[in-house]
Amino acid sequence: MKIIVLGGDGYCGWATSLYLSAQGHSVAIVDNFIRRQWDHELGAQTLTPILPLSDRLRTWTRLTGKSIELFVGDVTDYEFLLSTVKQFEPEAIIHFAEQRSAPYSMIDRKHAVFTQMNNVVSTLNVLFAIREVQRDCHLIKLGTMGEYGTPNIDIEEGYINIEHNGRSDLLPFPKQPGSFYHLSKVHDSHNMMFACNVWGVRATDLNQGVVYGTMTDEIGLDEALINRLDYDEVFGTVLNRFCVQAAIGQPLTVYGKGGQTRGFLDIRDTVRCIELACLNPAARGECRVYNQFTEQFSKNVREAGKDLGMKVEIDHIPDPRVEAEHHYYNAKHSKLLDLGLQPHFLSESLLDSLMNIALKYRDRVDPTITLPQVNWREPRNERRLQANVAAGISVSAAQPGESRVASGKGKNR
Amino acid sequence: MKIIVLGGDGYCGWATSLYLSAQGHSVAIVDNFIRRQWDHELGAQTLTPILPLSDRLRTWTRLTGKSIELFVGDVTDYEFLLSTVKQFEPEAIIHFAEQRSAPYSMIDRKHAVFTQMNNVVSTLNVLFAIREVQRDCHLIKLGTMGEYGTPNIDIEEGYINIEHNGRSDLLPFPKQPGSFYHLSKVHDSHNMMFACNVWGVRATDLNQGVVYGTMTDEIGLDEALINRLDYDEVFGTVLNRFCVQAAIGQPLTVYGKGGQTRGFLDIRDTVRCIELACLNPAARGECRVYNQFTEQFSKNVREAGKDLGMKVEIDHIPDPRVEAEHHYYNAKHSKLLDLGLQPHFLSESLLDSLMNIALKYRDRVDPTITLPQVNWREPRNERRLQANVAAGISVSAAQPGESRVASGKGKNR
Repeated sequence: MKIIVLGGDGYCGWATSLYLSAQGHSVAIVDNFIRRQWDHELGAQTLTPILPLSDRLRTWTRLTGKSIELFVGDVTDYEFLLSTVKQFEPEAIIHFAEQRSAPYSMIDRKHAVFTQMNNVVSTLNVLFAIREVQRDCHLIKLGTMGEYGTPNIDIEEGYINIEHNGRSDLLPFPKQPGSFYHLSKVHDSHNMMFACNVWGVRATDLNQGVVYGTMTDEIGLDEALINRLDYDEVFGTVLNRFCVQAAIGQPLTVYGKGGQTRGFLDIRDTVRCIELACLNPAARGECRVYNQFTEQFSKNVREAGKDLGMKVEIDHIPDPRVEAEHHYYNAKHSKLLDLGLQPHFLSESLLDSLMNIALKYRDRVDPTITLPQVNWREPRNERRLQANVAAGISVSAAQPGESRVASGKGKNR
Repeated sequence: MKIIVLGGDGYCGWATSLYLSAQGHSVAIVDNFIRRQWDHELGAQTLTPILPLSDRLRTWTRLTGKSIELFVGDVTDYEFLLSTVKQFEPEAIIHFAEQRSAPYSMIDRKHAVFTQMNNVVSTLNVLFAIREVQRDCHLIKLGTMGEYGTPNIDIEEGYINIEHNGRSDLLPFPKQPGSFYHLSKVHDSHNMMFACNVWGVRATDLNQGVVYGTMTDEIGLDEALINRLDYDEVFGTVLNRFCVQAAIGQPLTVYGKGGQTRGFLDIRDTVRCIELACLNPAARGECRVYNQFTEQFSKNVREAGKDLGMKVEIDHIPDPRVEAEHHYYNAKHSKLLDLGLQPHFLSESLLDSLMNIALKYRDRVDPTITLPQVNWREPRNERRLQANVAAGISVSAAQPGESRVASGKGKNR
């Protein structure tokens, strides 16, 4: 298939692009590299030394003989997007090109507005481009399980049959998103359902859980293909951050009592779910919703770390988010299994491999960037590089040994 | 009370500002006059000759001795909004400052993106301004009954208790909005619920039905206070448009079979609902939702017109919207009644007065602007002034007599 991956230089996008290329699909990446710019804004680099995209793509071609096309530009720029779609004529567009961090969206008003504008406009643009020039193209859009929040009833996949006062209807599942970022995905979902209805667009909304891991078969081929691994408080997803913390002997920063339950999946399952969606396109006018995760649990790295013989400490810090610490959680996720997904469950071997990666790149670990500095309750969070605050030195000179200072309890504002 | 009316120069905003001022409240209007700019963009002026806001305000002060403050600026400009809120210190902010036309949002991509950005950013800005400098201020935000769509179950006021697999929860009522405009209001509603939850903002989301009428006690005091009355295909709400069409003997442009049922209310009830919401503020952290309409019906102007002894013809034109022509509709609307609302029901006298206004300003009627030119099924509608298309003359020279040409059947694209 001819597939465009919007945001193909990012964490999930890069792994997906390689996987799809390896499966024989004709792949084009669209990216504007803003994710790399945020690294600089936040003073937080990926643990793994990722190469520039052009070098990554050259390596891929050298190793496999396969080439991936590249279109450099911003999806919120409609002229650029339209010309890309006209030129490549994709059968599927996978849309990862959104600001994906909840804490980033909660920094302050500008970050909240940016996140919603960037995400909503990019998805509107993709919908209009498909309608205008590529009507049978299937949109596969990354949503998040966080769109649902934590209702006291089972979470269905997108729609729920409601009986009320003797009548019934199949309606969109009510959404209770927990950050301006999660809200942007809810806005996208509503816009997509509408476009499917009025224009007959084919769409799949993948409400993805928290992704962990960094390695896939393709990425493992060569260090030049290495994927990003974020462990900072803003972009680091929880299991990745915990593994890096455990590997360097830093206490895990658990938010509150740590009783929050969420859906999780291995990045190797992300890429397979995306291909399954591509190979089984939605019908004309169908807005299909899949819950894309494989297991739900509270974060249990402490137990896993202990099993691996590591000493894992935990700092229970005040929860910077506004969320229920104890709640019912039972989310359905059978549709991708029905399409043939064979899940990789969280295992010691995965945690082991993640910790080994952290140990391998230990010199690159900045232990001062894991403590939360974005408090949901504040409308304006002035993030500071912790190294400056706690150690009086510039972040470029920060050493792993400073971690105990910077990660002290009670620093969460 | 000290009340800011955002969008106080518009159709509902002006009537509300005068009403609140007459009740003794201290009122400030915020407006950037973009609604008057859209008149020029669309080539469609209000039926009634509205004066510049400065003249309107001077007249109000001359007649009543009361003054209304004016802040000229754009609510999407946060610096401006923040300084206004700091200066006026409102106890309530009424937010009418959004692009409110569904057809306008469906013209093309630019209008869709503008509508969502303008509306979403303005509401985000208001939420941040309240949180940052006026935490007890009550936000009264205009939503729309169109957020709900037409589900096959009773529509509750904002929230519904759902029982599912033996558990239950009170959740946001599922939304199925029918245009990019209606979607923008759904986005706003989700953003508001979140801000109430994390910041303790007090908010009331008024899901208003279709407003009709133009006259209130205050507006009737002097012709210089006259309110706008839109009857064009883009901004004219259906009953207002039908009354103008009936008054000039033009067939009513009914979309499809005309079986669509909606909630309606008299503009005199709009202003009273707003005051009731002000006088009974939401609690800290509460996001209260009221369905603000008084009657639900299919548009029955034909019958009313006949009762008035008028000959009313109907053109059943292809529905430019994507909507069900026959559907279940039963929306609850008891909360404002519980607060004391005494509804004005649609009566012959109201229609009579509307038609009299149309007759009074008959020379200003442009019968070429009532036929829909925005088709929901198209991603790009190139609106043309019908006078140019049908009669080969400029719109400034259009005469009422051309109506039969311009309103011919089958012209809907």
